Amino acid sequence: MAYDVVVLGSGTGGYPAAIRASQLGFKVAIIEKENLGGVCLNWGCIPTKALLKSAQVYQDILHAKEFGIEASGTPDFPAVIKRSRGVADKMSKGVQFLMRKNKIDVIMGYGKLKAKGQIEVTGADGKTQLVEGKHIIVATGARSRELPNLKQDGTKVIGYREAMTLPQKPNSIIVVGSGAIGVEFAYFYYSMGTKVTVVEFLPRIVPLEDEEISKELEKIYKKYGIEVLTSSEVTSVDTSGNGVKAKVKTPNGEITLEADIVLSAVGIAANIENIGLETLGVKTDKGKIVVDKFYQTNVPGIYSLGDCVPGQSLAHVSTKEAIICVENIAYNEKKYNHQPEALDYNNVPGCTYCTPEIASAGLTEKQARDAGYEVKVGKFPLSASGKATGVGHTEGFVKVIFDAKYGEWLGTHMIGYNVTEIIAETVLGRKLETTYHEVLDAIHPHPTISEAVKDAVEAAYGEAIHL
Amino acid sequence: MAYDVVVLGSGTGGYPAAIRASQLGFKVAIIEKENLGGVCLNWGCIPTKALLKSAQVYQDILHAKEFGIEASGTPDFPAVIKRSRGVADKMSKGVQFLMRKNKIDVIMGYGKLKAKGQIEVTGADGKTQLVEGKHIIVATGARSRELPNLKQDGTKVIGYREAMTLPQKPNSIIVVGSGAIGVEFAYFYYSMGTKVTVVEFLPRIVPLEDEEISKELEKIYKKYGIEVLTSSEVTSVDTSGNGVKAKVKTPNGEITLEADIVLSAVGIAANIENIGLETLGVKTDKGKIVVDKFYQTNVPGIYSLGDCVPGQSLAHVSTKEAIICVENIAYNEKKYNHQPEALDYNNVPGCTYCTPEIASAGLTEKQARDAGYEVKVGKFPLSASGKATGVGHTEGFVKVIFDAKYGEWLGTHMIGYNVTEIIAETVLGRKLETTYHEVLDAIHPHPTISEAVKDAVEAAYGEAIHL
Repeated sequence: MAYDVVVLGSGTGGYPAAIRASQLGFKVAIIEKENLGGVCLNWGCIPTKALLKSAQVYQDILHAKEFGIEASGTPDFPAVIKRSRGVADKMSKGVQFLMRKNKIDVIMGYGKLKAKGQIEVTGADGKTQLVEGKHIIVATGARSRELPNLKQDGTKVIGYREAMTLPQKPNSIIVVGSGAIGVEFAYFYYSMGTKVTVVEFLPRIVPLEDEEISKELEKIYKKYGIEVLTSSEVTSVDTSGNGVKAKVKTPNGEITLEADIVLSAVGIAANIENIGLETLGVKTDKGKIVVDKFYQTNVPGIYSLGDCVPGQSLAHVSTKEAIICVENIAYNEKKYNHQPEALDYNNVPGCTYCTPEIASAGLTEKQARDAGYEVKVGKFPLSASGKATGVGHTEGFVKVIFDAKYGEWLGTHMIGYNVTEIIAETVLGRKLETTYHEVLDAIHPHPTISEAVKDAVEAAYGEAIHL
Repeated sequence: MAYDVVVLGSGTGGYPAAIRASQLGFKVAIIEKENLGGVCLNWGCIPTKALLKSAQVYQDILHAKEFGIEASGTPDFPAVIKRSRGVADKMSKGVQFLMRKNKIDVIMGYGKLKAKGQIEVTGADGKTQLVEGKHIIVATGARSRELPNLKQDGTKVIGYREAMTLPQKPNSIIVVGSGAIGVEFAYFYYSMGTKVTVVEFLPRIVPLEDEEISKELEKIYKKYGIEVLTSSEVTSVDTSGNGVKAKVKTPNGEITLEADIVLSAVGIAANIENIGLETLGVKTDKGKIVVDKFYQTNVPGIYSLGDCVPGQSLAHVSTKEAIICVENIAYNEKKYNHQPEALDYNNVPGCTYCTPEIASAGLTEKQARDAGYEVKVGKFPLSASGKATGVGHTEGFVKVIFDAKYGEWLGTHMIGYNVTEIIAETVLGRKLETTYHEVLDAIHPHPTISEAVKDAVEAAYGEAIHL
């Protein structure tokens, strides 16, 4: 069967690419080896949000007395997992519906580039079929990265997939790596009553965030009772006994940690092997496919995006890349009259859904200073926020960074209640090259956490009312 | 004592006016008859958010099983009230701190304009003092409005103040009026286990919102078991028995409702009597003080803002008015070099914190059509949102309205989980005259409720991925 556009992989890069292509008048097929929706829907963003919601409900019960409610409760761990899987299934079925609605052919099986314009798909039954497409978009995503010292066995040393489907609650867990995945699972298991230790190779947890964010989260995690070991490295694991013994090199010497389970959350590796890239001579570099700003590879007619290419490995990045890629194909074929703008990777929001939440966009203070900016920094602690006080979550802050010379909004870094919902404003403001005056003239509703952005901007310019 | 600026009333209009004036180099006094922070902090926005948080915690407990948590609980009503009062006290003390920090003299007592530049303040002990100010800002706020047929007695027929400090949970309550205050209390009491009836004079509840919002909230409230009577009017109340008997004129004839308590939430009346406005000849109209765009009254040196003047009676409006008013005074006196922009009352966000929350800015669909716009409307149901599904709150939607001709973002109307936190983006986008392309090019993080704004904008232009 011959298509205009064939998408390999149906994650948050692949399925939006297929839909947008169909909207723009292309005949489209999508190839998927496992579940429609890919990692994000099935094994990432969505099921973890379900787990974290259960965690928050349980934490609210534990703290109910502070809100005037007499309560007691206990997590039914398998039920928590089951709900999360149900949410993932529902979202995956939603993608099925979208494929049908947009008249996209879904081909289940493992796809491999065979020749220019050709993908061979091997089904579960071992039978193969040839799918032809004028434009082929490789969006095969990524998987949990394995460290040489931390081979995953799927039961005692696990990755994120196993971490969200454990049959029972572990009594103790060592989380290796403290990016978004690591600290989210650390919070989830801590909340469920598991003893949690976080081991981070770099000197601070959530190392991609602004330094003050790392410091605040570490302080809060330690208050929870989560053990945090930074500048530390797991050098070996021994899984021969009942649990796991992990040797950890710390700044104070080597220690041995014991736990039921070790979760390896040290990043991801792109799925670019065994998909025939070599056959067609598609260029890769450092484990990623090389593309131009419209996601075209060096081979005409082959595109790639999402976790397969450089740039932040985030669902919303892959979706936007997909839309840009497809709109540009349509523009070149005169099916669409608006050439898309290239994505500004310096204005991508990042969100982490532990409690408190973390959200950021743009440069950190250090990045801004290192880039030579003279900065104006404003910081508003949520302890001064009426909304935060009302809901009883006063930890954290909003920090904004402006360029002192031209007034550019360089970045926003937030940790606290609900902050993942309020970062979009910064992204739009930066996109529209707002001034600080315009941010302040745009009324923020009271009482909300979103006001704290305004308060922080006021603070950056010495006009803070509530500090 | 003579000041540059004297502020009468320390609510969300008054205290920011005092702080900004102090920042700009003025010698400032503020006069308050009761609690620093005024109604919002002490009897409005903040303590109600505390009550609603307790309600949500209790609702989460009742629904905990859906999240895999076995739990039971019961509200300790006096403890719920006590926590709310504690939150209000904390915020009021925060204003005290801000006054000290900004070297603002706080004068406790009842202030009354005596002559140009003079206010007589009567203290609790009956003693009077004369306070002199070159600029006098009247920010005395508002109180619960009384209907002739619904006189408040403070025990059986009550206003919002009593509604947030009842000694015990009523078994049944009739809420008259379904603006923000009415539907918030309706949700709170429903959540606590009270039988709630809402009576609204107009044909729909939350009558200032877009019609689809009203319909959605009514549907959800009815599902909760809240009785909703629209196009209905309380014609008389009989408080002679144990509870209250209210005669209600409905489209189906007159009925009699019985309840423990009737809450009158039919709006507010400005506090502009007995403060000496007549003495100085300050012009009023329809119960409000007449001001220009910089909040100057007809009498030079006398200003007014907040609930005393026309415009939305909202905390964030009064705060912004205060800053504009004071910055303009400073600009005229050459203490500040940036003349403030007049407030755009068509771009003020409104938020209601019932469950689900409501947030809006700009024109409703009907207002836009009535104004002659040809509109593009996009609507995204939260049932299609990954975040909403993950957290188990899929009711509601985000609706955006664009002008088809020039692409202006005319309005956003939302009902659902956390939407009060995401309306600020619309306000900033409208302020900066964004195009829909720019909204879509500003990446919204996944998974959040904030994405639904992007999804709705896509839908308005036929580019929806997730519908």
